[in-house]
Amino acid sequence: MDAQELAGKLQQGDQRALARAISLAENDHPTGLEILQLLRYRDDVPVVGITGPPGAGKSSLVNALAERWLDAGLRVAVIAVDPTSPFNFGSLLGDRLRMAGLYLHPNLFIRSMASRGSLGGLSPRILEVCDLIKNAGYDRIVIETVGVGQSEVEIAGVADTTVVVMVPEAGDEVQTMKSGVMEIADVFVVNKADRDGAESFARLLRQLSIQRHTAAWEIPVLLTRGDTGDGVDALGEAIIRHHGNLPARRKELLFEKALHLLREQWLRRFPHTALRAELETEAAKPDFNLYRFVANLAQRG
Amino acid sequence: MDAQELAGKLQQGDQRALARAISLAENDHPTGLEILQLLRYRDDVPVVGITGPPGAGKSSLVNALAERWLDAGLRVAVIAVDPTSPFNFGSLLGDRLRMAGLYLHPNLFIRSMASRGSLGGLSPRILEVCDLIKNAGYDRIVIETVGVGQSEVEIAGVADTTVVVMVPEAGDEVQTMKSGVMEIADVFVVNKADRDGAESFARLLRQLSIQRHTAAWEIPVLLTRGDTGDGVDALGEAIIRHHGNLPARRKELLFEKALHLLREQWLRRFPHTALRAELETEAAKPDFNLYRFVANLAQRG
Repeated sequence: MDAQELAGKLQQGDQRALARAISLAENDHPTGLEILQLLRYRDDVPVVGITGPPGAGKSSLVNALAERWLDAGLRVAVIAVDPTSPFNFGSLLGDRLRMAGLYLHPNLFIRSMASRGSLGGLSPRILEVCDLIKNAGYDRIVIETVGVGQSEVEIAGVADTTVVVMVPEAGDEVQTMKSGVMEIADVFVVNKADRDGAESFARLLRQLSIQRHTAAWEIPVLLTRGDTGDGVDALGEAIIRHHGNLPARRKELLFEKALHLLREQWLRRFPHTALRAELETEAAKPDFNLYRFVANLAQRG
Repeated sequence: MDAQELAGKLQQGDQRALARAISLAENDHPTGLEILQLLRYRDDVPVVGITGPPGAGKSSLVNALAERWLDAGLRVAVIAVDPTSPFNFGSLLGDRLRMAGLYLHPNLFIRSMASRGSLGGLSPRILEVCDLIKNAGYDRIVIETVGVGQSEVEIAGVADTTVVVMVPEAGDEVQTMKSGVMEIADVFVVNKADRDGAESFARLLRQLSIQRHTAAWEIPVLLTRGDTGDGVDALGEAIIRHHGNLPARRKELLFEKALHLLREQWLRRFPHTALRAELETEAAKPDFNLYRFVANLAQRG
């Protein structure tokens, strides 16, 4: 099937065409890029990043959120970022299986994407994957990170709205440990809100958020329970409100995406294996200079 | 002063020429790149990244380490990554002031560099700064991150040896919260080792590290006290041993540096203000497609 044909099927909402196009894009197949060049640019579909430490209940919250949206007749896509790290695959598998209750819903599309490298960053092709999903007629995209390593901060460069999920017990750590994550939250969620300390932790988060409030957006701090669904409607509303509210932020995100795609396209001109070999040869010479080497490369590129 | 002249003075160890060259490189002044192209590529000077959460005592440890090396007659440079974040400037200022005891030592060079963006990443020019310092005749470079946000994982792409500093109380958190940081450690330090639980936390870290041991390197877990200097000699030795031990790792790091410089050089061809304006105009058109836009840009670049 050629790019034109795949793009056509994808735009009709064909899940198999979508899955195939995603694989092509992930593998840097030229047809993947061709398809993307045929599609519409859409920023009307909210992309929601859900992040937070392992054990915060992100998966059950994603589950509950997806269920609400599916019940409302919407088409929902969930991207689960899978770690390559040996430290944390155990809990993840269990999390994913809980999604099973919705797994067969015809309006739900689930895809897991490997994280990049040992530090758990997002795949460099996640933007492409989101754009393909949008064009296949999905109304909401939820990206769930594993909550470790780089993916938790990188998500802010991909998602329209970043939701940081924590549990009441995190109250003691939040001021010393997670400033990087504190700063990317558009919405805070205190999940497992039936536990002790939920209210006081929410108050602390509200205090910490005040200095990041703007005229356009006050960061809400919501109490939820993934198991019962309490507070999940409010979370869904906050996400949609945030997405609609921030044209300046969307413009900034578009610029960041353009820079990202520009960088990635540039790097494809230098196949890594050949580059490694050339660098190794050059670096062995006594007059090697990395800056001259890169300047020469760039002129060739 | 032109590039040739500045490079010459810098190579004689002139601190003012070094400071000037660093400013030029940080500001993307063409003379900065010219200087770098005139210098030798050196991978014989260990670059040590010190990371870990705020409150772990990184600054006093850096102090103690620098003092040992200065006493041994070595020339030492310390780069302090300063946050732009509003969340944590308070503690930092205090930390830096403690360095004051060594501040006037003639063989010590201290430079603070702003972190990049609100997520606290490392400055994209930190590689250039390290290369300038190496050519000014320094024997050791220590980069101290603020321990929040992206800088804590990014440091592994810059430093030859990454030292992760924690305190005994971190034992409860380490398995759930900090996997990203767990995975970048070449050396673990349990600082403030006179506190309760230091030994058992060190044992836990040793267990967690086993799966990351290789034939070339077993990750040491060291107990230190920044205030008394206990264990600091062993830390210094572990750093030098690690630096000398890993030619494969250094080769990988060189490749990563080349990619980084290649990306940054490419992006300089697209001045951000003009690019933003052009993107905004194009994005307003009904047939806008980001992938076609980027492909056209790349052809022009």
